[in-house]
Amino acid sequence: MKVLLVFAHPEPRSLNGALRDVAIRELEAQGHEVRVSDLYAEKWKSEVDRSDFPSISADTQFKPSRASKAAFTTDTLTQDVTAEHEKLLWADTLILQFPLWWYTMPAILKGWVDRVYAYGFAYGVGEHNDTYWGDRFGEGTLKGKRAMLIVTTGGWQEHYSARGVNGPIEDLLFPINHGILYYPGYDVLPPFVAYRVDRIDQAGFADVAERLRERMRTLATTPPIPYRQQNGGDYLIPSLQLRPDLVNPGDRGFALHVNRQGAAE
Amino acid sequence: MKVLLVFAHPEPRSLNGALRDVAIRELEAQGHEVRVSDLYAEKWKSEVDRSDFPSISADTQFKPSRASKAAFTTDTLTQDVTAEHEKLLWADTLILQFPLWWYTMPAILKGWVDRVYAYGFAYGVGEHNDTYWGDRFGEGTLKGKRAMLIVTTGGWQEHYSARGVNGPIEDLLFPINHGILYYPGYDVLPPFVAYRVDRIDQAGFADVAERLRERMRTLATTPPIPYRQQNGGDYLIPSLQLRPDLVNPGDRGFALHVNRQGAAE
Repeated sequence: MKVLLVFAHPEPRSLNGALRDVAIRELEAQGHEVRVSDLYAEKWKSEVDRSDFPSISADTQFKPSRASKAAFTTDTLTQDVTAEHEKLLWADTLILQFPLWWYTMPAILKGWVDRVYAYGFAYGVGEHNDTYWGDRFGEGTLKGKRAMLIVTTGGWQEHYSARGVNGPIEDLLFPINHGILYYPGYDVLPPFVAYRVDRIDQAGFADVAERLRERMRTLATTPPIPYRQQNGGDYLIPSLQLRPDLVNPGDRGFALHVNRQGAAE
Repeated sequence: MKVLLVFAHPEPRSLNGALRDVAIRELEAQGHEVRVSDLYAEKWKSEVDRSDFPSISADTQFKPSRASKAAFTTDTLTQDVTAEHEKLLWADTLILQFPLWWYTMPAILKGWVDRVYAYGFAYGVGEHNDTYWGDRFGEGTLKGKRAMLIVTTGGWQEHYSARGVNGPIEDLLFPINHGILYYPGYDVLPPFVAYRVDRIDQAGFADVAERLRERMRTLATTPPIPYRQQNGGDYLIPSLQLRPDLVNPGDRGFALHVNRQGAAE
């Protein structure tokens, strides 16, 4: 298997750095090829702006998605972005690793998404009209590949549980798992989360590392989260609302978009 | 009233730019003072890294929250960050305005949060032990102030409805409203959202602008989202889980953290 690990922590000597090395060593021990995009080390540019699209003249209004479409079509995206496209197309599996900062990814990783997810590559793929709303949510450029998150938190697992004050971790990560990974076609594995990492001791680290190694060993076989495909018949088009006969009409929230009847677990 | 508007769109001549101007004009017409942090215009630095803490020696392991605490305590945060603190303390009301990119804020605004939300300012405030878990979620440095989001989306309102494929907009914005604004003490107003803005015509813009002006006129009187205070008795400490006698035990998701019985609407 070919694995791309996108790493978003500023300190290589951190717990995140140590876990990254654990993951890479285990993947390589299993015979997989691993490439890493180390965003801080590579001084990744986080902000989508006009300088990403040098062919736009100074007096033209900058419309990010229009500029992205034009640059993708004419193959004039910047080299840092096309290098990531090449890696994403090369990899069978994508791993995003980051510390949870303010309940989501650090800015530098959001900037990787904002800039790498070009129009024509990650969105704006496939036909788009009132009866077909593009190849997305289960289809798209990255269909057939797997993706998962490796996340660390300072807070306790209980704080991120079903009734924890932060909100459930699976709901906090839904906009990433569903909105960023499933959207362009990835099968999304359940995330690996290490909680309470600020005060972890050696025994605690050994446990977390072994849990992570196990996830790396089962990367190819772990059942993905059974999100509903947009074009699989579960949604009305063009309103893109879940069919009224699916799930209780009163139900709401992110969990509706997971088809638990089709789940392996 | 004193209003700080943090603006995160790269093009002043955009719909976002026009809506910002509508909001500012209406606020000023009402006699309010307005200051703007225009993140792109100010070339805001998005990435938390070692250069934010020049007093850390090169051979010291960089721990972001520890470094943030030390810099806040010794008043050695960088000038761009302390300037934002001054504005946040000055303002009665904070508005964050941004286009929804990949279901959350653009990287540059996340970078504003990651860097401005220093330890001792936005978190790590108040006592912290096994019976009291800090002044947060309804208490903290910014308690008594109001905050709201102004958000634009390309997608349709139906796509962000209770059963829409993207997930409900209030759930997508929960990590921001609850995790970023309510956390350091803000009373959080319901967001202003303009949908389907890519194809908006003049009449559509006039409608959106009028809706926004109305929200600006009622900024001081709109009831906030009735989130449950962490230290108000609704949560067990230190597990920070919602008390078992509140809400049905089977219920879950972000909506649990809103006390609808106490709501004005």
